[in-house]
Amino acid sequence: MSTSPVSIAIIGAGGVGKCFLSQLQALAARRPNPKLSLVYISTSKKALFKSDYSAIPIDSAVQELSAASTAPLALPKVIEYLAAAPSKVVLVDNTSSQDVADSYPAFLRSGISIVTPNKKAFSGSYQLWQDIFNAASTSGAKVYHESSVGAGLPVISTLKDLVDTGDEVTKIEGVFSGTMSFLFNSFAPLEGSGGKWSAEVKKAKELGYTEPDPRDDLNGLDVARKLTILARLAGLPVESPTSFPVQSLIPQALESVASGDEFLQRLPEFDSEMESVKTTAEKEGKVVRFVGSIDVATKSVKVGLEKFDRSHPIAALKGSDNIISFYTKRYGSNPLIVQGAGAGGDVTAMGVTSDLLKVLSQI
Amino acid sequence: MSTSPVSIAIIGAGGVGKCFLSQLQALAARRPNPKLSLVYISTSKKALFKSDYSAIPIDSAVQELSAASTAPLALPKVIEYLAAAPSKVVLVDNTSSQDVADSYPAFLRSGISIVTPNKKAFSGSYQLWQDIFNAASTSGAKVYHESSVGAGLPVISTLKDLVDTGDEVTKIEGVFSGTMSFLFNSFAPLEGSGGKWSAEVKKAKELGYTEPDPRDDLNGLDVARKLTILARLAGLPVESPTSFPVQSLIPQALESVASGDEFLQRLPEFDSEMESVKTTAEKEGKVVRFVGSIDVATKSVKVGLEKFDRSHPIAALKGSDNIISFYTKRYGSNPLIVQGAGAGGDVTAMGVTSDLLKVLSQI
Repeated sequence: MSTSPVSIAIIGAGGVGKCFLSQLQALAARRPNPKLSLVYISTSKKALFKSDYSAIPIDSAVQELSAASTAPLALPKVIEYLAAAPSKVVLVDNTSSQDVADSYPAFLRSGISIVTPNKKAFSGSYQLWQDIFNAASTSGAKVYHESSVGAGLPVISTLKDLVDTGDEVTKIEGVFSGTMSFLFNSFAPLEGSGGKWSAEVKKAKELGYTEPDPRDDLNGLDVARKLTILARLAGLPVESPTSFPVQSLIPQALESVASGDEFLQRLPEFDSEMESVKTTAEKEGKVVRFVGSIDVATKSVKVGLEKFDRSHPIAALKGSDNIISFYTKRYGSNPLIVQGAGAGGDVTAMGVTSDLLKVLSQI
Repeated sequence: MSTSPVSIAIIGAGGVGKCFLSQLQALAARRPNPKLSLVYISTSKKALFKSDYSAIPIDSAVQELSAASTAPLALPKVIEYLAAAPSKVVLVDNTSSQDVADSYPAFLRSGISIVTPNKKAFSGSYQLWQDIFNAASTSGAKVYHESSVGAGLPVISTLKDLVDTGDEVTKIEGVFSGTMSFLFNSFAPLEGSGGKWSAEVKKAKELGYTEPDPRDDLNGLDVARKLTILARLAGLPVESPTSFPVQSLIPQALESVASGDEFLQRLPEFDSEMESVKTTAEKEGKVVRFVGSIDVATKSVKVGLEKFDRSHPIAALKGSDNIISFYTKRYGSNPLIVQGAGAGGDVTAMGVTSDLLKVLSQI
């Protein structure tokens, strides 16, 4: 690890962003080398930075930012500003912005490394994916995105290690959404009978486990984005998260209702459909779960409801945990499994912070 | 990643060593940069190396080695030879030798990085542990040992990421021995009643799941070594693998019988003891498993038999899989779990190869 100072630029100071700042502060206090200097931080409305790249105090950055009146720089200007910094630079993108993601190739071409939980960059068009990794490969800048799948769980790093050491990944299967995990572990539990589908969705929303409009979870797109990332890492040139079958759990009649609240009000009309899915599985001695799977040999990627034996690790999942099973040639019939919380500010930020440490050890 | 060539030295060409060589060959073919040059390879009896450091062909190294008549260099001479190499050097120690392990500080002080599955280096005296990491920190040489616990499973890297990003690890618990996993999954399975203890030990030996003398698994020392490594990474200065309670499954009367065969012959005399352990657990609706656990707050490390609810992930383990649960402040009541094959040449070599890739990206 070089001991020259490294400049850190952060875009995004929401839930994950705040947790990351707190981890960054602890890290800077614990590890004096290399000296980390925060030179830019912005939200969609405001930014903090100095023309002489002097360091912004990490502990008061969020407060200073909320008191600031400077608008954020346009992304090409951010790149220009950071490329001219007197030290190496790591961009931490804590947004879920497609615009920021679309600028990754330009950041990387300018030698700026990137760590991020932003799924959009890696699950958008395959062209963007190629542009990102080609730019990194040409400039030598690094790009890490552990938290784009399963938050801080070692999912991306494990898959990369399998591939890079020459193992043959045959299948990846799992529960990739904390929301879907919670919903199905409550709706179709191993013990007891579970509540009505609409009631479980309502409860999940009240507990903060869903997006403000629960349809943004139930449409399956979040899971499809994660599958796209993993499939590409496993070698499949998946065109986009809508280029393979994704089962939406939004009843067609409710797709276009005006609000999430109206959706929740009318959802009970469709409880019998989900109830029948549940009882069909029960009659086979199984439980229903919302999973994603990638079959590498047949190049098939899909997202939707599947039935699992009650002894299957996917059936036994608890709370809002994720589980990801890697079937490979080396691991044979028993997969390598990673399991645990796959959402939440602290564990998502942890993936970003550990990615930052990996970049710092290499630049 | 630097593009200057890197010299590789390998000690050990047994099961893991051969699998590693095959992965190294595939790696060198797939990734031309940095150029990897095998400059030294040895077993306990023989060695291959040239005074001008010219490359040994990786694909024929094992054959050439068996035809060779050169004795291996003494370890101080190996260090001298490698320290004078014209490029950076990584030592791959694929032995389980205490002597090689004891030389790690000297290798590292000479700027030679190390990747290894050798548990002895990290589970011997706490002084050796400190010497190793102090030497690495002073010289900047790297030392990675993922496969010292759970073979290629992401155990060490996950624990390091948790600690390095500032999470507070409260407890680590799991099944750390493929042999013990197989024995208890067969002896006290979730479904059915399982065989007699002595019959399961005999079967495990016949299937190649035990050491030549099964007592080398049943004494618990292998698990104690792994616990020592994880406890130290979690911040506990554990003095040695015999400085905490380790339950041996060798009946006292059989500790000193002359051979593994005699041990197996007499083991049935003690079946009733293990049977009573099993039925006691069954009466509580539980199953018995051989586990290791680390409670960080109370600084308590222990290895032995424990009872688990039938719905516990440890109870549901299959085949000879390992499972490791990390309980941390950030992950709360549901631990981060890693599970899968924790032994075998290919998956052990995979951990070594992925460690090598990490070192190559940093030197």
